[in-house]
Amino acid sequence: MRVEIVAVGTELLLGQIPDTNSQWLGEHLAANGIASHFHQHVGDNHDRIVLAFRTALARSDAVIVCGGLGPTQDDITRAAIAEVMNVPLIRDEAIVEAIRKMFGSRGREMPENNLLQADVPKGASIIPQTRGTAPGLICPVGQKVVFAVPGVPYEMTDMFERAILPELLRRERLAGNESVILSRVLRTWGASESGLAEAIGDELSSLDDNSRLTIAFLASGIEGIKVRITARGDSAEHAKELIAEEEVKIRSIINAKLGEIIFGVDDETMEHAIATRLLDKGLTLGVAESVTGGLIASRLVNVIGASKWFRGGVVSYASEVKFDVLGVPVGPVVSPEAAEAMAIGAAKLLGSDVGLSVTGVAGPEEQDGHPAGTVFVGIAIGDNVSHVALRLPGDRPRIRAYSAISALDALRKALDELSK
Amino acid sequence: MRVEIVAVGTELLLGQIPDTNSQWLGEHLAANGIASHFHQHVGDNHDRIVLAFRTALARSDAVIVCGGLGPTQDDITRAAIAEVMNVPLIRDEAIVEAIRKMFGSRGREMPENNLLQADVPKGASIIPQTRGTAPGLICPVGQKVVFAVPGVPYEMTDMFERAILPELLRRERLAGNESVILSRVLRTWGASESGLAEAIGDELSSLDDNSRLTIAFLASGIEGIKVRITARGDSAEHAKELIAEEEVKIRSIINAKLGEIIFGVDDETMEHAIATRLLDKGLTLGVAESVTGGLIASRLVNVIGASKWFRGGVVSYASEVKFDVLGVPVGPVVSPEAAEAMAIGAAKLLGSDVGLSVTGVAGPEEQDGHPAGTVFVGIAIGDNVSHVALRLPGDRPRIRAYSAISALDALRKALDELSK
Repeated sequence: MRVEIVAVGTELLLGQIPDTNSQWLGEHLAANGIASHFHQHVGDNHDRIVLAFRTALARSDAVIVCGGLGPTQDDITRAAIAEVMNVPLIRDEAIVEAIRKMFGSRGREMPENNLLQADVPKGASIIPQTRGTAPGLICPVGQKVVFAVPGVPYEMTDMFERAILPELLRRERLAGNESVILSRVLRTWGASESGLAEAIGDELSSLDDNSRLTIAFLASGIEGIKVRITARGDSAEHAKELIAEEEVKIRSIINAKLGEIIFGVDDETMEHAIATRLLDKGLTLGVAESVTGGLIASRLVNVIGASKWFRGGVVSYASEVKFDVLGVPVGPVVSPEAAEAMAIGAAKLLGSDVGLSVTGVAGPEEQDGHPAGTVFVGIAIGDNVSHVALRLPGDRPRIRAYSAISALDALRKALDELSK
Repeated sequence: MRVEIVAVGTELLLGQIPDTNSQWLGEHLAANGIASHFHQHVGDNHDRIVLAFRTALARSDAVIVCGGLGPTQDDITRAAIAEVMNVPLIRDEAIVEAIRKMFGSRGREMPENNLLQADVPKGASIIPQTRGTAPGLICPVGQKVVFAVPGVPYEMTDMFERAILPELLRRERLAGNESVILSRVLRTWGASESGLAEAIGDELSSLDDNSRLTIAFLASGIEGIKVRITARGDSAEHAKELIAEEEVKIRSIINAKLGEIIFGVDDETMEHAIATRLLDKGLTLGVAESVTGGLIASRLVNVIGASKWFRGGVVSYASEVKFDVLGVPVGPVVSPEAAEAMAIGAAKLLGSDVGLSVTGVAGPEEQDGHPAGTVFVGIAIGDNVSHVALRLPGDRPRIRAYSAISALDALRKALDELSK
C-alpha cells in the first residue's frame, strides 16, 4: 500500500507558504506503517491538477489531496477529481444544510459561493466537516482511491485521523498486511542531537535491518530533541511490548550518561511536566516575565485545568514595572539578583506558593553590557530562592522561545529536588 | 519555460525535516519570472528517482534536483541522472583534486567515499563547489535540462544564484520570454474567505486567462485571510506598476463593501499595525489578559523596539488576581464590565496611556453561564473606555489565538478612531 500526497495551491509553488501538510502526513503515515514514495505540489490549474492525480494514481495505490476545497474560484480540486473519476459533480443538499448551520451558529449569512463546497463527485463519499465548512471526500478510482481534504492544517489533521487513517488501515488489512507499527517518543531538553546519538550509539548499532525496532532522532527546535522508538509487531500488544522493553533500556542509558533530560513522552509538553508536579505537591504558581514577554504564561494555560495551579503572571517589559509592580530593587534588570527578586515579587503579588521569573536580552542589541542570549531564570519556592544563568543561541524569536522552555525545565528540576 | 523541482530524500517523505529548498527555489524562480507548475519529493531509491525525473521531464522544460549528491550509500542522484541521460558516469580527476584540497585545508584526510562525488554523467557540465564537497551538475537531456544541486540549503542557494538562474534566464531569452512575476499580499482580519471572494467577484471575473494579473486568497487561520495580487510584467518596474494599480482597485472595493479589514501588507503582522499606530501617536500600552494567558503580550514583544511603546502586562488567570491586582470589582469575571475594569486597571498598574484587556471562556467547559468562545475585549484610552463582545469558534488553543488577534484588531480600530 503506497500513498502519494498531492498538495494543491499556487502559493506552494511560489514559495509563499511552507508545505507543512505533506510533512505532517508523511510523519503520520510512517508512524502507522504506511509507505509513501512520492509527494507532489501543483498549482490552482484544472489541467495540471488532473495530470498530477493521474501521475499519482499510476505509481501509487492511494492519493491524499490537500487544498483546493474552499469556496472560491481557485478551489477546483472537486472538479479535477470528478474528471479523473469520469463522473459528474452532484450538489449534496445535506452538506448545503450543514454549511448553512455553521454560518448560522456564528450569526452570519452563508454566501452563495459556499454552495460550491456542497458539490460531490458522483460515487464519492463524504468526510463530514467538524472544524470548517468544506467536507472531505473519499473518491474510489477503480481499486485505488483519492482522499480530498482541506488545506487548512487544523481541518486536514482532524479528517486524516477521523476518516482517512482508519480507511487506509482497513485497506492494509484487506491486502493481508497485518503487522502493526507503533511508536513512542521520548522528549528531551538539554542535550544535542549528536550527544544523544553518541550516548545511544552502541544500542543503535545492535539493531540491524532485520530488527523489529528502529530508533530515530527528531530535532524539534524549541521543543528539544525527540527520540522515537518504533516497533513492528504481529499485533498492537506485541508492538507495545517491544517498545516498552526498549524504552527501559534507552531511558537507563540516557539517564546514566546525560542526566534527567527526558521530560515527557509522546504529546506531553514541558508545561504538562510542570502541571503534573505542581498538582502532585499541591502548589500554585505565579510568573514574572521580561524577555519572554508572556510566552511562559501562554504555554502554561495551554494545559486544560490550569486554573487549579496557575495564578497568573506579570509581563514586566519596562524596567519601571519591575521596580514598581514587582518590587525589584532599582538597578540593572538583567542580573541574577533581579531574576530572584522578580520570582519573589511574582509569588507575593499573585499570591502563589511558587514564583518563576525570566529576565534577559533578546537582542538584536546588547543590554546592561550583556550580549543577546544572556538570560537569568529565578525560582522562589517559599523561602528557597535560586537562579539559573543561561547563554542561548539564535535570533530574537528563538532566544525568547528557548528562554521559555529553559525556564520551565529549570522549574521542573527544582520541583523534583523537593521530593528528594 | 517551466521548471520542476524534485527534492530527493527519504527524510522528506517521512516528514522528519521540512522541505525548505522547494519553497526557497519556488520563491526565487517566481521573482525572476520563471514558471514552476509542479514540485515532487522522492525517497533515496534509484528506480523511483529515475521515475520522478522522467515524470518531470515529460511535463516541464527544466528540472532542478536537490539532494542525493553526498558521499554515502543513499546518495544516488548522479546514477539516476546518468540513467535518464542514457550515458555512463565518468570520474573527473579535477573534482577529485578539488575535494582532496578542501579536506586538506581543514587538516583532514579525504575518506574514500568522497570519490563518488567526482563521478559525472558523460556530457554533463559542472557547477564548481565553493561551500561544500559535492559539485553541482548541468545535465542536458535533449532540448531539456536537469540541474543537480546538494540538499544543504547553504550550498544549494549559492549554486542556484551563481549558475542555475543565469542559465535559466539565458534559456528564457532564447525562447523570447523576458517577463518578471511579482506579488503583493494584502492582509485582512474579520471577513470570511467566501465573503471576500464575493466582494471582489466582479473584479476577479474581469481578469481572464490572458490577463497579466491574478488574484488569490490564502486562508491563514489565526492570521486572517490574505489577498495576493500577482502580476507578470515586461520588467520589475512594469510588474510593480500593474500591482500598484490593481491594489488601489481592490482596496477601494474591500473598504466599501467590508470596511477597514486590511491591516497590513506582505510581512506586516497585526502587532506591527499596533506598533505603527502607537508610535505615531506617542502612546504607550499595557495589557491585562485572562483567556489569552500572555499571548497578546508575547505577540507585541515580537516587534523589534517594542520597549518604546509597550510597558508590560498582567496575566490575571485566577479571579483574585483580577480583583486584587487589577482592581476589578468582585463579581462575574467574564463580562463587559470586567473587561473594561481590567483595561483601566492595566493602564493604571503599568503606567501606560492605553489599556487593553481580554476576558472570556476558552473551554472546554462553560464559565459564569457563558459557553466556550465567549470573549470580551476592553479598551481604555485615557477616559475613553469601551468594550467589544465576541463569539469565537474552535477548540481551546484556537479560541485563545483568535481572541488575541481579535483584541489587537479592536485596538487597531479604536486607535484609528482617535485620528478621525
